[in-house]
Amino acid sequence: MGLVVQKYGGTSVADPDRIRAVADHVARTRRGGDDVVVVVSAMGKTTDDLIRLAHDVARHPGGREMDMLLTSGERISMALVCMAVEDLGVPAISFTGSQAGIVTDTAHGRAKILEVRADRIRQALAEGKVAIVAGFQGVSTDRDITTLGRGGSDTTAVALAAALGADVCEIYTDVEGVYSADPRVVPEARKLAHVSFDEMLEMAATGGRVLALRSVEFARNYGVPVHVRSSFTWAPGTWVTEEDPSMEQAIISGVTHDASEAKITIEQVPDRPGIAGRMFRELADAGINVDMIVQNVSTAGHTDISFTLPRDDVARAGAVMEKIVVETEASGFRTDDRIGRVSLVGAGMKTNPGVAARMFEALAAEGINIEMISTSTIRISCVVHEDDVERAVRALHRAFGLEEAAP
Amino acid sequence: MGLVVQKYGGTSVADPDRIRAVADHVARTRRGGDDVVVVVSAMGKTTDDLIRLAHDVARHPGGREMDMLLTSGERISMALVCMAVEDLGVPAISFTGSQAGIVTDTAHGRAKILEVRADRIRQALAEGKVAIVAGFQGVSTDRDITTLGRGGSDTTAVALAAALGADVCEIYTDVEGVYSADPRVVPEARKLAHVSFDEMLEMAATGGRVLALRSVEFARNYGVPVHVRSSFTWAPGTWVTEEDPSMEQAIISGVTHDASEAKITIEQVPDRPGIAGRMFRELADAGINVDMIVQNVSTAGHTDISFTLPRDDVARAGAVMEKIVVETEASGFRTDDRIGRVSLVGAGMKTNPGVAARMFEALAAEGINIEMISTSTIRISCVVHEDDVERAVRALHRAFGLEEAAP
Repeated sequence: MGLVVQKYGGTSVADPDRIRAVADHVARTRRGGDDVVVVVSAMGKTTDDLIRLAHDVARHPGGREMDMLLTSGERISMALVCMAVEDLGVPAISFTGSQAGIVTDTAHGRAKILEVRADRIRQALAEGKVAIVAGFQGVSTDRDITTLGRGGSDTTAVALAAALGADVCEIYTDVEGVYSADPRVVPEARKLAHVSFDEMLEMAATGGRVLALRSVEFARNYGVPVHVRSSFTWAPGTWVTEEDPSMEQAIISGVTHDASEAKITIEQVPDRPGIAGRMFRELADAGINVDMIVQNVSTAGHTDISFTLPRDDVARAGAVMEKIVVETEASGFRTDDRIGRVSLVGAGMKTNPGVAARMFEALAAEGINIEMISTSTIRISCVVHEDDVERAVRALHRAFGLEEAAP
Repeated sequence: MGLVVQKYGGTSVADPDRIRAVADHVARTRRGGDDVVVVVSAMGKTTDDLIRLAHDVARHPGGREMDMLLTSGERISMALVCMAVEDLGVPAISFTGSQAGIVTDTAHGRAKILEVRADRIRQALAEGKVAIVAGFQGVSTDRDITTLGRGGSDTTAVALAAALGADVCEIYTDVEGVYSADPRVVPEARKLAHVSFDEMLEMAATGGRVLALRSVEFARNYGVPVHVRSSFTWAPGTWVTEEDPSMEQAIISGVTHDASEAKITIEQVPDRPGIAGRMFRELADAGINVDMIVQNVSTAGHTDISFTLPRDDVARAGAVMEKIVVETEASGFRTDDRIGRVSLVGAGMKTNPGVAARMFEALAAEGINIEMISTSTIRISCVVHEDDVERAVRALHRAFGLEEAAP
């Protein structure tokens, strides 16, 4: 007898047939003896449809109203899943984010969870009921409805699992787990039985689309074991947990890639203290999410600084850069949006020197030019030309033998 | 400077174009100097679509979950209308039924408003904002989301108008007002400039589909002037107010009809005290909405009792009747679902004898047989064969000269 939080994504509840399949699995879990809390996303493309409607009626839809609009999607799927579970003879009760006690700050569209007051859920569980909760939403300290941003339902699930002390947070999706690379790019990619929170964080941050970054941070901070698995096959998936020092670690767990960024290089900046600080402060103030930053060594008192950013932010960043070039007396800046990033992630990297060298050799052997490099203790990322991304992923997957059976 | 409550029905907000048209009218009203509270229904057929989804996932969807599901429809339209109004430069803020302080009892699917705690709306108005409220919904004393039943958005609007002391409650719909008969049946039907609460109540109860019965009761009890008008032409419509004794009254305001009922007759019931009471108590306990009741005079200690009820309830009522026939030693019961009701409504009827006679003569002249008769001080209803309903409506409209200009 434990407590399981199960989160079902949009494809898992896309139509009445899928909802009945989900209800069946929920009922089975409950009958198996566990207490169950279910978190649901909006059905299929509902959220996208609602966003389109908003832009059909207003040029600049307000954040508060947008949140009110979008949260109706999860209310619909939540009520339908609850009805379907009850219809199988298993008592269930649904809660909006607000009713579930998900209290957030007031940042509409990207609210942060401040507190989880899960009294009503605890009471429902004590009464033997399955609690069905609308993901992605909360109520702000101003009593307004808020949303947690894309991937927010994962965060709801992990936050509830943490608050309730759940034994596991199961994230059901349309893939079987976390893979050693995107199977659409590398057909022989292998499903990973286990990754550590740190590895999952690096993967999520560098293009692994299975879990939202914020939910992984939350799971790591609160030590919530996450099990990513498929609601189509119900097969065991990938466990994301604390690193287990007794296990022999794979040097490399996976290769991730991301082709949604662009690169900006400011050229011939005078190499004086404070210049970089000022530059990234102004970009941050403009709300631009800078990702990788690389600065080359200085030659003759001048240096180049490159950074990557989401392609959608390039136009806005350009305006800021024009100003910075003048202020810093740099010679100019260049934008390149035909780039992609390829990353190797693996906890074993820490104790195995030479991974970077093998990575660069493997890319060189394919004739792929490396434009930027950045590393963490368990990740190495290379920026390459957009056209080379998929070839690079395949080459690295092969070079590190990732298609072989798990250790 | 006054306070106007405007309610927009589903056809008025059916698509982005309609929503922008509504927003434009709201903005114009606000700029004209009045404070404005807007109540919206769900877009077009949203509610029907959601009901269908519920029945696709569960054989017997629970009432609490059904209410949670259906209320998302009004949240969507509320947020969209609010965005569209703001987009025109008019400050606006949306409220769910719960946020608007619509407190109801716990009867899911047909909740009654217990109290309106409109503090947030008052504050919004004080800040110069238009308040946009989701119709049809409230929050129960158990903190659950409830719905007010079909036509509930009208009730929300009138209840808010009463609580806020509004000068008028405008009900925008897809017709131009209340007509002397259904224009689809009587092409020369005339739009009424004014009807009294009592007349409107009788019309709503006997098939006039423009206003929900409950909202008219509410308006009458709290003396809220209602203006029914079109959101397609924006032309002045029909005022529903207290009867004005100084005005010369039309004898007959309109002819209504309803073909959604059936008739059950229990035959040869022993004419003893308490029999009818017992029969209608059992029907009431089974949740059957009995409408007209007619009992003929007794012959030889036995009588026939007939009543009308919604056709959907006939099967359930049949089961109750089987039992009653045995208990009361009646000879049996007959069901007829091929009936229709035609009613004449008019406040002037009170002081003008002979209306009933003229009605029966007009029907007789058309060769239409009358199966049941029931009257109130300002209404006469006749049950006729289903096939005769429309002919009866036209004959009565003509006989009472209703196509002529208003008095």
